[in-house]
Amino acid sequence: MTIRLYCFGESGNAYKAALTLELSGLEWEPVYVDFFHGETRTPEYRALNPMGEVPVMVDGDLTLTQSGVIQDYVVGRSGKLGWRDEAERREILRWVLFDNHKNSGVGGPVRFNMNFLPEDKRNDDVNAYLVARHGSAMKVLDGCLEGRDWLVGNGPTIADIANCGYLFYPEPFGFDRTAYPNIDAWLDRIAGLPGWKHPYDLMPGSPADRA
Amino acid sequence: MTIRLYCFGESGNAYKAALTLELSGLEWEPVYVDFFHGETRTPEYRALNPMGEVPVMVDGDLTLTQSGVIQDYVVGRSGKLGWRDEAERREILRWVLFDNHKNSGVGGPVRFNMNFLPEDKRNDDVNAYLVARHGSAMKVLDGCLEGRDWLVGNGPTIADIANCGYLFYPEPFGFDRTAYPNIDAWLDRIAGLPGWKHPYDLMPGSPADRA
Repeated sequence: MTIRLYCFGESGNAYKAALTLELSGLEWEPVYVDFFHGETRTPEYRALNPMGEVPVMVDGDLTLTQSGVIQDYVVGRSGKLGWRDEAERREILRWVLFDNHKNSGVGGPVRFNMNFLPEDKRNDDVNAYLVARHGSAMKVLDGCLEGRDWLVGNGPTIADIANCGYLFYPEPFGFDRTAYPNIDAWLDRIAGLPGWKHPYDLMPGSPADRA
Repeated sequence: MTIRLYCFGESGNAYKAALTLELSGLEWEPVYVDFFHGETRTPEYRALNPMGEVPVMVDGDLTLTQSGVIQDYVVGRSGKLGWRDEAERREILRWVLFDNHKNSGVGGPVRFNMNFLPEDKRNDDVNAYLVARHGSAMKVLDGCLEGRDWLVGNGPTIADIANCGYLFYPEPFGFDRTAYPNIDAWLDRIAGLPGWKHPYDLMPGSPADRA
């Protein structure tokens, strides 16, 4: 049975799961979630995911939420994008947690605030705070990519896919990849993987659809 | 050899690792990190952890960072506080990621801003934004604890320890446990576990030491 992923194009958290599925070679299809009309706040959606977030993955009887859990599952099911030993497994987990805490966990909200909130609800102080915090995370990421092609081991893993979750989007959120040469080259490397797609090409929904 | 944990009392992220070690029964000892005098920004500390964060765990030749990775390691080494099967393993990972993204990842910074930043660097708009975000996460956590003693399975796991990371601290950060009856009862349950200790009793360093 084809795996279904509840997602929408604007969500970098969904993109992490979608890109992992796509690059793993598993059969999957997106199910569009109408986030901008409040679908994730409906009782039906909360029954699917009490955390009220995308992505949600359904594979037969199994329903999983949290992008990092879905990534872990896809590694197990496909044998791709994962670890060769316990040390690599832990190192990948380290980067997935870093992404949730400091990278996507901050970059995602500030991109939302700066681009998708009504203008009268935007707050410059809040956004400056988040941009600075995300910038610190980018500095760490850029430093750790020095002399490396991929975050863990010698090839792409879910650690790379997690951390690039919000970094291909065109909307401004204080992140300029050209300011971070190692990130810039690493994003090119990810975009060069066979089967790679931009979030707006991989998942349904984009600002253009709502314009 | 005794496991060493680089930590300080005020860090809920360190508390997650310290409490996991303590409740697992493994031998460990804290190594005080003088965060408030900039130790995590020194070249020596960055060599230990390029992410510049506490906690860091050293067990013989093995150095691990990120509280969730250390928790995962302690489960493997002690056989305690973990999962009985793959489904529980994934469910625990889901809650550890939720904590990093929405709970400790937001509650930690706002507690820092409201209590440990110099008064002239505090920003009410930023703190109100973070308090509201953390409140949404607390609503989800409280809802998911309805009718349950523990987040996953029938006993305490690292999922519970991750999510309580910042919730025992006395400093105000917009979180009032009495507003969330299920969280309130669950925190009492955690505090009732044999060997439980408050962060300021488990790790060196507290605001009282600096007063």
